Amino acid sequence: MAASIALIQGASRGLGLEFCKHILKNKSPAAVIATCRNPDGASELRGLAAQHPGRLTVLRLDVNREEEIRGAAERVKESFGKLDLIVNSSAMLHPSGKGETSLRDVSAQGIISTLTTNTVGPLVMAKYFAPLLQKGGGGFGQQPPEKAKQHSGIIVNITAKVGSIGDNGLGGWYSYRMSKAALNMATRNLSIELGRGRPKVVCVSLHPGTVNTDLSRPYHKNVPKDKLFSTEHSVSCLMSIIDALNVDKTGKAYNWDGTELPW
Amino acid sequence: MAASIALIQGASRGLGLEFCKHILKNKSPAAVIATCRNPDGASELRGLAAQHPGRLTVLRLDVNREEEIRGAAERVKESFGKLDLIVNSSAMLHPSGKGETSLRDVSAQGIISTLTTNTVGPLVMAKYFAPLLQKGGGGFGQQPPEKAKQHSGIIVNITAKVGSIGDNGLGGWYSYRMSKAALNMATRNLSIELGRGRPKVVCVSLHPGTVNTDLSRPYHKNVPKDKLFSTEHSVSCLMSIIDALNVDKTGKAYNWDGTELPW
Ligand SMILES: NC(=O)c1ccc[n+]([C@@H]2O[C@H](COP(=O)([O-])OP(=O)(O)OC[C@H]3O[C@@H](n4cnc5c(N)ncnc54)[C@H](OP(=O)(O)O)[C@@H]3O)[C@@H](O)[C@H]2O)c1
Ligand SMILES: NC(=O)c1ccc[n+]([C@@H]2O[C@H](COP(=O)([O-])OP(=O)(O)OC[C@H]3O[C@@H](n4cnc5c(N)ncnc54)[C@H](OP(=O)(O)O)[C@@H]3O)[C@@H](O)[C@H]2O)c1
Repeated sequence: MAASIALIQGASRGLGLEFCKHILKNKSPAAVIATCRNPDGASELRGLAAQHPGRLTVLRLDVNREEEIRGAAERVKESFGKLDLIVNSSAMLHPSGKGETSLRDVSAQGIISTLTTNTVGPLVMAKYFAPLLQKGGGGFGQQPPEKAKQHSGIIVNITAKVGSIGDNGLGGWYSYRMSKAALNMATRNLSIELGRGRPKVVCVSLHPGTVNTDLSRPYHKNVPKDKLFSTEHSVSCLMSIIDALNVDKTGKAYNWDGTELPW
Repeated sequence: MAASIALIQGASRGLGLEFCKHILKNKSPAAVIATCRNPDGASELRGLAAQHPGRLTVLRLDVNREEEIRGAAERVKESFGKLDLIVNSSAMLHPSGKGETSLRDVSAQGIISTLTTNTVGPLVMAKYFAPLLQKGGGGFGQQPPEKAKQHSGIIVNITAKVGSIGDNGLGGWYSYRMSKAALNMATRNLSIELGRGRPKVVCVSLHPGTVNTDLSRPYHKNVPKDKLFSTEHSVSCLMSIIDALNVDKTGKAYNWDGTELPW
């Protein structure tokens, strides 16, 4: 059987980059397709490609551009013909780099930009890449013995605990919270559409914990040291969840420790 | 004490128009501010204004235009100085008029338009009108005897049951479902920010049932006759919920029958 193929969207930095490293290191001979807005500037990805000859492909993909998503899907189709896993990792807190602390900071343009990148992007990814996941070999997750319950591929949308409406006790961060709540709805809808009939694609939202990346940097000083995860730790937790995914676990949001998050 | 003032946003047709009629008829001497995109074309509203001299003001407000929202808030401030209730009623299923039946129908532009009108609009309304609700006299809802728990105003965001992630068993309607899930997060966030300290503004999401309006028209043939509410019936149910609102009920989503909806 052909090697498994994972596509990591938003792979230039942070958790996306770490997913690439993790899979190249721990899931040999799986191949990785890393997408990012600016491949020329992605020196870390170029270094990884040199370290793992033939296993890493870098593609340009700005998740805000539907045409670029469509084009990338065509290139993956031509070169690989299938996919086993997609991780949508790209996101921002807000164009300003900081979540709104109150209504005063809210602007239509800020919310729309955040929703476009964090929510619309991952769903449009699913639109163009779902056919390739339906041709996947089910190389990630756990396959039950019954053929009818086996999956061909997996979509992971990286969400955030602050995107849980039921868990929201603090408020603030309007754009980011709304974008992740809507992303969770997209995950749920995708799990239903892609879980009917066969082949089946498993779709989940995963919260990575509070992780030491550029995104959370403005808030690091408020996080107790043992609560601020390294990207290595976070991705290794998330990969343990992914390794255990199957159709019974589709359509839900999970915390980094595997517990289910409320909507 | 000055008469209560309700602002109905999206009042040209459907449920928004019916809210205006209901309040003018049943909540005298309350005043109504009806906002819509095209006041010149809103003959029903003009008729109502003639029927209820001095009680109905019509203002132009396209919820997609932040500047128009800001301008309308300034005019309300100058003319009325306060508000007791806002109902955000405007929405669309999708620019095409029909919800997406599958991923094939999904487009970035379609989702962004739907999110802009259904989700961003109501939140930007709250940004500019919250200060007026904080000056409200608490003319709608139920006031508990303890002063500290009394509210000055109410924000009602009209949501939809299909915007409940936990209740979603059918899938489809990506843009609309995502827009209402994100709107519910906005409601929750607003309830927290505007529920701290005093004055307090109560914020809820309400589902009107399946109602005989233009929005649902493409689907009427699939709805059993006794399940398709008239706007009169729906608004009278929703007003019963609003009449009983207080700070203990803030930050939640309710069905037309008053039961709580899951997120
Ligand atoms: N870090 C945390 O504490 C934390 C907590 C909860 C959830 N999350 C979630 O985890 C995921 C990864 O975040 P992170 O912490 O790794 O953030 P990060 O280090 O700031 O990385 C963000 C990534 O998103 C990419 N990106 C932004 N806009 C894009 C676009 N339009 N098209 C393509 N890529 C785009 C960036 O690419 P460029 O290099 O081109 O800018 C970058 O690779 C996000 O979904 C985030 O919401 C993070
Ligand atoms: N009908 C149902 O079965 C049903 C079920 C669940 C939830 N809902 C919700 O109930 C609410 C009212 O819907 P409805 O059934 O009364 O729909 P409707 O009859 O189609 O009316 C929609 C209203 O929204 C206005 N609108 C659209 N875009 C706008 C914009 N950019 N700025 C300002 N106004 C805008 C329209 O104004 P124009 O006249 O200018 O176009 C119209 O007044 C919506 O939030 C809807 O999601 C309805």
